[in-house]
Amino acid sequence: MPIADACAAWAAALAPDRVSRDANVVAKYGRSTLVEAPQPLAVLRPTCRDEVVAAVKIASQHAVPLYPISRGRNWGLGAACPPTAGQAVLDLSLMNKIVEVNEELAYAVIEPGVTQGQLAEYLDDNEIDLMLDCTGAGRDVSIVGNCLERGDTFGVYADRFLHCSALEVVLPNGDVITTGLGHLDAAATNLYKWGVGPSLDGLFSQSNFGVVTRLTLELMPEPETMSVYFFGVEDEQLEDLIEALRPLRLSGVIHTALHLANDYKALAAMEFYPWDETNGQTPLPESVRRRMRARYPFIQGWIGNSAFYGTHDQVQAQQRELKRALRGITRVQFVTPRKLEWGLRALRVLARTRLPVVDRLGTLVERARTMLTLMAGIPSNNTLLGTQWRLRREPHEESLDPLDNGIGMYWFAPICPLTGEHVRRLQRLIEEISAEYQFEPMLNLTLLTGRAALLTNVVLYDRDDASERERAARCNNALVERGIAAGYPPFRCSIDSFRHLGANDSPYWRFVRQLKRAADPEGVIAPGRYSPWVFHDAS
Amino acid sequence: MPIADACAAWAAALAPDRVSRDANVVAKYGRSTLVEAPQPLAVLRPTCRDEVVAAVKIASQHAVPLYPISRGRNWGLGAACPPTAGQAVLDLSLMNKIVEVNEELAYAVIEPGVTQGQLAEYLDDNEIDLMLDCTGAGRDVSIVGNCLERGDTFGVYADRFLHCSALEVVLPNGDVITTGLGHLDAAATNLYKWGVGPSLDGLFSQSNFGVVTRLTLELMPEPETMSVYFFGVEDEQLEDLIEALRPLRLSGVIHTALHLANDYKALAAMEFYPWDETNGQTPLPESVRRRMRARYPFIQGWIGNSAFYGTHDQVQAQQRELKRALRGITRVQFVTPRKLEWGLRALRVLARTRLPVVDRLGTLVERARTMLTLMAGIPSNNTLLGTQWRLRREPHEESLDPLDNGIGMYWFAPICPLTGEHVRRLQRLIEEISAEYQFEPMLNLTLLTGRAALLTNVVLYDRDDASERERAARCNNALVERGIAAGYPPFRCSIDSFRHLGANDSPYWRFVRQLKRAADPEGVIAPGRYSPWVFHDAS
Repeated sequence: MPIADACAAWAAALAPDRVSRDANVVAKYGRSTLVEAPQPLAVLRPTCRDEVVAAVKIASQHAVPLYPISRGRNWGLGAACPPTAGQAVLDLSLMNKIVEVNEELAYAVIEPGVTQGQLAEYLDDNEIDLMLDCTGAGRDVSIVGNCLERGDTFGVYADRFLHCSALEVVLPNGDVITTGLGHLDAAATNLYKWGVGPSLDGLFSQSNFGVVTRLTLELMPEPETMSVYFFGVEDEQLEDLIEALRPLRLSGVIHTALHLANDYKALAAMEFYPWDETNGQTPLPESVRRRMRARYPFIQGWIGNSAFYGTHDQVQAQQRELKRALRGITRVQFVTPRKLEWGLRALRVLARTRLPVVDRLGTLVERARTMLTLMAGIPSNNTLLGTQWRLRREPHEESLDPLDNGIGMYWFAPICPLTGEHVRRLQRLIEEISAEYQFEPMLNLTLLTGRAALLTNVVLYDRDDASERERAARCNNALVERGIAAGYPPFRCSIDSFRHLGANDSPYWRFVRQLKRAADPEGVIAPGRYSPWVFHDAS
Repeated sequence: MPIADACAAWAAALAPDRVSRDANVVAKYGRSTLVEAPQPLAVLRPTCRDEVVAAVKIASQHAVPLYPISRGRNWGLGAACPPTAGQAVLDLSLMNKIVEVNEELAYAVIEPGVTQGQLAEYLDDNEIDLMLDCTGAGRDVSIVGNCLERGDTFGVYADRFLHCSALEVVLPNGDVITTGLGHLDAAATNLYKWGVGPSLDGLFSQSNFGVVTRLTLELMPEPETMSVYFFGVEDEQLEDLIEALRPLRLSGVIHTALHLANDYKALAAMEFYPWDETNGQTPLPESVRRRMRARYPFIQGWIGNSAFYGTHDQVQAQQRELKRALRGITRVQFVTPRKLEWGLRALRVLARTRLPVVDRLGTLVERARTMLTLMAGIPSNNTLLGTQWRLRREPHEESLDPLDNGIGMYWFAPICPLTGEHVRRLQRLIEEISAEYQFEPMLNLTLLTGRAALLTNVVLYDRDDASERERAARCNNALVERGIAAGYPPFRCSIDSFRHLGANDSPYWRFVRQLKRAADPEGVIAPGRYSPWVFHDAS
């Protein structure tokens, strides 16, 4: 059997305890928040690049493809599961070295196993005046994995793929290259993305052209000061809000990827789904939604937040501009680290009174503390709490990992022009499809740039309920299919949706397929990943 | 003869008058600022994408490769000339449509023939509140060509390649694709670069994987206000200056690609080489250099300039930060459009007096006017005046195009870490090599990002002087070869230097070569372009 022979060879090349076909081990990697996911054949855990090279060569000899994962937390899009059956997971989490941090030039060289929490802690422990621009996926996710998936962060860098470079890649034939200027051993290898000649980074993102074993990540210099801000609008104000924000995002006054959550999304971060109050009915009835919202006065149709960084003067100027732009739409609240200190002190003093202001201040202080921490580059697993919305059983005692909690989740992240009209049209589409399948539209609007927004939706469902499972899968399918048909394709894609990314005979994918065949004639690396043709051919 | 048959077929597919083997026509395209350049076999001038498709298919049938150019102004790096003999130039300059300008979302869709001057004029004529981020190459150069060469601009966008997207590409097999989200016909096609799945833009930059016939360029929203600034330092202060500027560029206080010119470069913009004063001796003797500098008090070892854009408050805050950072190093002068008006008025009043202040004010006003115009998105051909430094004959009466003036020029644009130490080391290397070959080091330091700088050098030489020609070619070769050996490869490369970009057996180029072969098995598009292996194979 090829897999048995391959595993024997891998065990000899790595170490017996880092190659496994054990059903329990494999099943752990085969967990998914999706309804169904192809199960891996085996799991390999290399500890260094040379072991990856050996693993790739053996995979080629035995015709058992490898599916590389960094930490396997690609929740809602497939987690650690390959898009097709018959692949062995290449788990890179043991390769978790922070190879270098350069404070002067503000970057870190890291391996795929390095997590957000690990890097943030490293910077803190070593008193390095640099900060990580975080995603909302918590402390235990891979940074490299997110870079290669072209994920988005909360802060100034926003676009992770853009802020990484010098990818060290093990190619399907076992060759090792470094992209950008790396192959020329340039002094600026870690400082300039494109290199000279054709630039290859794009080819190694959202793809299967090689195994990335190291890259350089830009870090933000710690600003002189920062200020987080909050505001809310009712849903009918959304277009006006977007039209007011776009010029600021375009001109750079808003210099981060500002996030806006709709009320469902905000409620999910505060409470579980009210199964009792609704008698088990889904989606959330309007009356219950209103009652829940009344419990959290700060939750409106949409609540937005982000931060300004810079010198005192700059932040002041930015605050004034934002206030001015939103005048007549809503009021913005700003909190600096210093103001938070005052709030905490005031809260301690007032805590003994029963003044109603205490509650409101308490909520604001808590929100401000969470945001200030996150926007200062300290990721938190609390951002994962919202995934438990539809959970009916007891949550895991220690872990907020959706996989440990058996959470059903599909993440759909369509990209759309940053105009009120487009965002509204896409919102209506997602709401309509969600209602058809009895899910709440859990929306997050991200001002990725001044031109393009993400309007991400999460379908949260009960994996133990057969009817919910079936509806969730169909809902996700409808979202991706109808989203693309309406002009709003996802900017990242779940492993069961690649076929929607294009027809088999499109010149575009024909070209990509030619390149893939040239780079990986035997299909050794992650067959099917972002490769629609594989699924058309199979059907 | 393949070329005769190909030309006949091209003439039938395009129009007889847009295909030429006429010696005069071909020679015009074969002009170069380099000492030698391979001459094209013929010239084709398609007017639309479909003609490009036809031209590519015919090229394939007759095995005559095509070398696509946009306007052919790649001065100092090869202009319109292919890197190897036997290619026909595919001149896209007749494809010069501004397809769309979207004011709301701040972009333009343009064809390869669109020049900087044309787009700037279009925006002005149509009173569109958007501006072009210009390069210093003047009005008649292609924007698309510069995007694909990954050129750098003066302003906030700095990196042209990053700010273009949705490349429409005619592939070597005649297929047409649009990169990014274009192949999915997404609403955000012109608004988001990476697309979904492997991102291909990088593959079509500095390369030969297809013919780009259209792309989307981001334009800057007109700022509320702007302010240009100037400063100078002596050469021994360069390290201190860089160390002071880096934190500002990293944090975004300096949000443009600030430029610094050394004194030679600044002098070349003011005067011709003083052949009389030096009795024809080169390089410029130190005594003459000092005398010339005395004529321009604003010229120091290095003079820097750039601009701030934003609201009044923001620009004020940025100005304060820059002043503060350079305190103890130098004084910065700021000029807003309003201040320029005052200056012009004062100049008119004072002009009749003979006060010495008039001259100094006059120079400042002129510099300010030039910079304000350029930084407001209006390119000027005056930036090309400096190329005439070593010219001995009369300049062309109307054209500043270096080719029309028979100028000899090699442009070397190495990339280096933005630290005083690295910039100094690279400067010394360039100075040393320049002196060896009797040229002045004409340096321009560009703060491309907060991490990486370009230290570009121009070798200007007399094409009519056999000894100068020989020295210039050897000087360029030494710069590229020793630059790369020292860790400072160029970020763009001249057609006669591709062989320096890597060994034939390097895994990196082996991989690129595999991809190229898959995309273009017959080598129809621009063989040799950024393909070191072609030159190793030939030798």
